[in-house]
Amino acid sequence: MSLLVTGSIAIDTVASPYGRAEDVLGGSAVYFSFAASQYVPVRLVGVVGDDFPKEFRDVLTSKDIDLRGLEVRKGSKTFRWSGRYAEAMNEAETVEVDLNVLAERGPKVPEVFADSQTVFLANTHPTLQRDLLSQLHSPKLIVCDTMNLWITTERDSLLETLRVVHGVIVNDGEARQLTGKTNLMEAGEIILSLGPRFVMIKKGEHGGLLVSSDGVAAVPGYPTTRVKDPTGAGDTFAGGILGYLSSCGRTDFNALRGALVRGTVAASFVIEDFSLRRVEKLTRAEIDQRVDQFVRMLRFE
Amino acid sequence: MSLLVTGSIAIDTVASPYGRAEDVLGGSAVYFSFAASQYVPVRLVGVVGDDFPKEFRDVLTSKDIDLRGLEVRKGSKTFRWSGRYAEAMNEAETVEVDLNVLAERGPKVPEVFADSQTVFLANTHPTLQRDLLSQLHSPKLIVCDTMNLWITTERDSLLETLRVVHGVIVNDGEARQLTGKTNLMEAGEIILSLGPRFVMIKKGEHGGLLVSSDGVAAVPGYPTTRVKDPTGAGDTFAGGILGYLSSCGRTDFNALRGALVRGTVAASFVIEDFSLRRVEKLTRAEIDQRVDQFVRMLRFE
Repeated sequence: MSLLVTGSIAIDTVASPYGRAEDVLGGSAVYFSFAASQYVPVRLVGVVGDDFPKEFRDVLTSKDIDLRGLEVRKGSKTFRWSGRYAEAMNEAETVEVDLNVLAERGPKVPEVFADSQTVFLANTHPTLQRDLLSQLHSPKLIVCDTMNLWITTERDSLLETLRVVHGVIVNDGEARQLTGKTNLMEAGEIILSLGPRFVMIKKGEHGGLLVSSDGVAAVPGYPTTRVKDPTGAGDTFAGGILGYLSSCGRTDFNALRGALVRGTVAASFVIEDFSLRRVEKLTRAEIDQRVDQFVRMLRFE
Repeated sequence: MSLLVTGSIAIDTVASPYGRAEDVLGGSAVYFSFAASQYVPVRLVGVVGDDFPKEFRDVLTSKDIDLRGLEVRKGSKTFRWSGRYAEAMNEAETVEVDLNVLAERGPKVPEVFADSQTVFLANTHPTLQRDLLSQLHSPKLIVCDTMNLWITTERDSLLETLRVVHGVIVNDGEARQLTGKTNLMEAGEIILSLGPRFVMIKKGEHGGLLVSSDGVAAVPGYPTTRVKDPTGAGDTFAGGILGYLSSCGRTDFNALRGALVRGTVAASFVIEDFSLRRVEKLTRAEIDQRVDQFVRMLRFE
């Protein structure tokens, strides 16, 4: 199943207790694409300014990522984000954001991508998410992310988006904020009542929770001491999930359960180094080995 | 393997968004005993005042809990704790504490219990923990809990206790405070360097982490919407773990992994109602069924 992602492409500056990375490649669509392209070719739709470095483009094309949906807008600048993590490493403090090209009109889905069957709408304005969706012929699996800002300021539009998607991937804070429920299973069940068939709730170091009409599953985080930079972990989680589901061509409960594991493992790699450094050189064999190890760790009598 | 627990026996008053329970049975040794006695007979060592209600004693003797180590101290009052939980349900706010009999001298281990092979030292002053231990002939498996207060005020004594125990069961906050490490695997490894062969870290709704000299394992919390009162969840977790280990008669890595699951499932029951209401009528068959379900949920391809 052909997989399309639309989301941000960024130039990031990140500091954590383990170091600092300046002007590095980032953005939700980029992290997603790296993870998903380990399973299937990825079609990326996004927009950058004419300051977007050639090296970054080269890094993307070195993977199975189709850039025909990447618009380079003349006279505009690429989205920039700068953040830092304190010792707890659980949430970034945003130091600076320059929306730049993201504050302009959204990207177009090129006609060659219009037949895409799986779509991930990374976090952006919910109206823009539906606008992007309307440019596709007949997607079979539509999954979206969102964020606190839209839950607060664009609730009606977000609810409209939730009515047309099959799945939602959000973090625990967003699930709670959206539903007013602290208990994540209750939150998940309320999200199901808004439209989607499944919800994957990202819990950072605590792993993930799948709530679907066919059942519930939970995994712990992959136990690791190697955490240098959590940036992109959520989008990488989504990339592992949708890459795996696309490669399976199924979205039954068991496929969703398998996807939850792949998402968790994908995220466990990206946090090991700044930006995409760890996943740039990551092989499918390394992923499969860690999936195996994780699955064995979770096998109890 | 005969199992002895020493810890508090309390009269609790608890309020949560789901109701309120006044003057109910509580205390670390009590919660532990209920969970552990599902697997093996439990020897309880503790002290109460002469106000301790006969009904509470009856509830304890209705289970496989040997009360020959329960001292009723004339002229003293039973330990009382009153707390409340806010919507998030993750941490109790203590409303009132009356140490009463717990502020006096510690309980004695009766001679008939001196041959106990497995011992759980629930949270109390670390010097008292060692004092209780010294009354046993040759315990094979010693496990302790502790709390933030002793980590801060009795660090040296606590380190001495850690040198003589085989295992530690603490919550995430305590593991972090004790080691100065935010990452729980790092925290676990540092605790191992202080003496114990294994550490089980309780993470509330997020499940548990086992760090041992033979490997690491993690489980998510048992997914449930039925959470009315988290009081005693940690001691119930410990009770499930040590009850199971005692019934196995083994403490190898696989037994510890199985114990982590039993502890998590034990805790998932006790939180379903106030005080011990849910576990009073809990059967071993119900436990085994939920263990089965949990193990199946964690079986991935």
